[in-house]
Amino acid sequence: MAHAHTPPHTEQHFEATETVRDIVIGLSDGLTVPFALAAGLSGAVANGHLVVLAGLAEIAAGSIAMGLGGYMAARGDAEHYASELKREQTEIVTRPQDEAEEIYEIFRQYAVPREAATPVLEALQQNPEAYVEFMMRFELGLERPAANRAHRSAATIAVSYIAGGMVPLLPYMVVGDVDLALKLSVVITLVALAGFGAVKGRLVGTGALRAAVQTTLIGGAAAAAAYGLARALNHG
Amino acid sequence: MAHAHTPPHTEQHFEATETVRDIVIGLSDGLTVPFALAAGLSGAVANGHLVVLAGLAEIAAGSIAMGLGGYMAARGDAEHYASELKREQTEIVTRPQDEAEEIYEIFRQYAVPREAATPVLEALQQNPEAYVEFMMRFELGLERPAANRAHRSAATIAVSYIAGGMVPLLPYMVVGDVDLALKLSVVITLVALAGFGAVKGRLVGTGALRAAVQTTLIGGAAAAAAYGLARALNHG
Repeated sequence: MAHAHTPPHTEQHFEATETVRDIVIGLSDGLTVPFALAAGLSGAVANGHLVVLAGLAEIAAGSIAMGLGGYMAARGDAEHYASELKREQTEIVTRPQDEAEEIYEIFRQYAVPREAATPVLEALQQNPEAYVEFMMRFELGLERPAANRAHRSAATIAVSYIAGGMVPLLPYMVVGDVDLALKLSVVITLVALAGFGAVKGRLVGTGALRAAVQTTLIGGAAAAAAYGLARALNHG
Repeated sequence: MAHAHTPPHTEQHFEATETVRDIVIGLSDGLTVPFALAAGLSGAVANGHLVVLAGLAEIAAGSIAMGLGGYMAARGDAEHYASELKREQTEIVTRPQDEAEEIYEIFRQYAVPREAATPVLEALQQNPEAYVEFMMRFELGLERPAANRAHRSAATIAVSYIAGGMVPLLPYMVVGDVDLALKLSVVITLVALAGFGAVKGRLVGTGALRAAVQTTLIGGAAAAAAYGLARALNHG
């Protein structure tokens, strides 16, 4: 591969990554947990209606819990960023010496002596906005969150969860026989998990095949455990 | 509050944060989704055994899916870090001029001119290890992951999910009447969500009361939606 470093944080890149991450979060749990629950229940009750009912209740609960959870997390990040930004803005004015020492301390960790760091410090002091941005990223490790991130994150996660969760339930909705529906559900969901894993692996760069195997194994293990537990409890 | 900046990434601090984050991930979903599923099902079927069965199947599925998901995510982070580290180690030797330009580019974003950045670059070039660490953090924004992070992350998330999920199911296990069990489950789970939210809010610094209200609302909304949907489907 050629020198493929992305230029350090263009907002474009950052945004796409966050949306992809939200889709991955929603889809991977949506494909896995309702699938495993439906498989588990069909191992215990021979009632397709009940499996669908429990599956849909799970999708409603899971999509709301994950979507609202994502909303709160994104809003929390944005508020944390805003409050730290305000603090840094105040501190470079009210405690310039402390801030300067923090700059020296950052560089000291990389064996950069004070006299080498001083020109950078002086340049930052000429430009308070850049100084604050520098501290946010290099002292605190914080990235400026995108505007409206919270709403979009919540919607993306919830819709992905619902889309993923409907896949394993479809066979139970259209096929009367629970055993047959279970077999169909296992096949189409494992195929969907493999396909999703392959796309995810390509997007995040871990390799399509390996990610496909991973997501399929996770979904299969969760479903097998739920199935085994439900059967054991029902017959125990 | 006094000047409460944590010193930039001591490993101690970083570690504790990750574990807390894993507990929060597991507990918040564990308290919410099995709770909502059980409430939803008890709105549709007057069978406590079935509610417990579905709830336990969900806990098995959810804890495995989330635990293995956390394991894969942590291992992916570690591998990504290792491969980028290797690339940077090679590049500072084979393409020193490109790497130097990347350093200038980082500083240019903060309005630090080349001549001010040069002493820092020269200091980094004296110390290849620090140079690589500097690029990892300031060009790529990557933190060195803790060793064994993946296993611990998986176990922490899964155990937290199970612990959280058992709370709403307990009433259905000990009380025969489903309606009464539902009421008890709602009360103890909302109390647990509020308590968990308060502790979480204090730990992550968003305020105890506000976080308590948020987690309780998320859990309540998810349960109400699952309950409403299951009732509507069952009577529809």
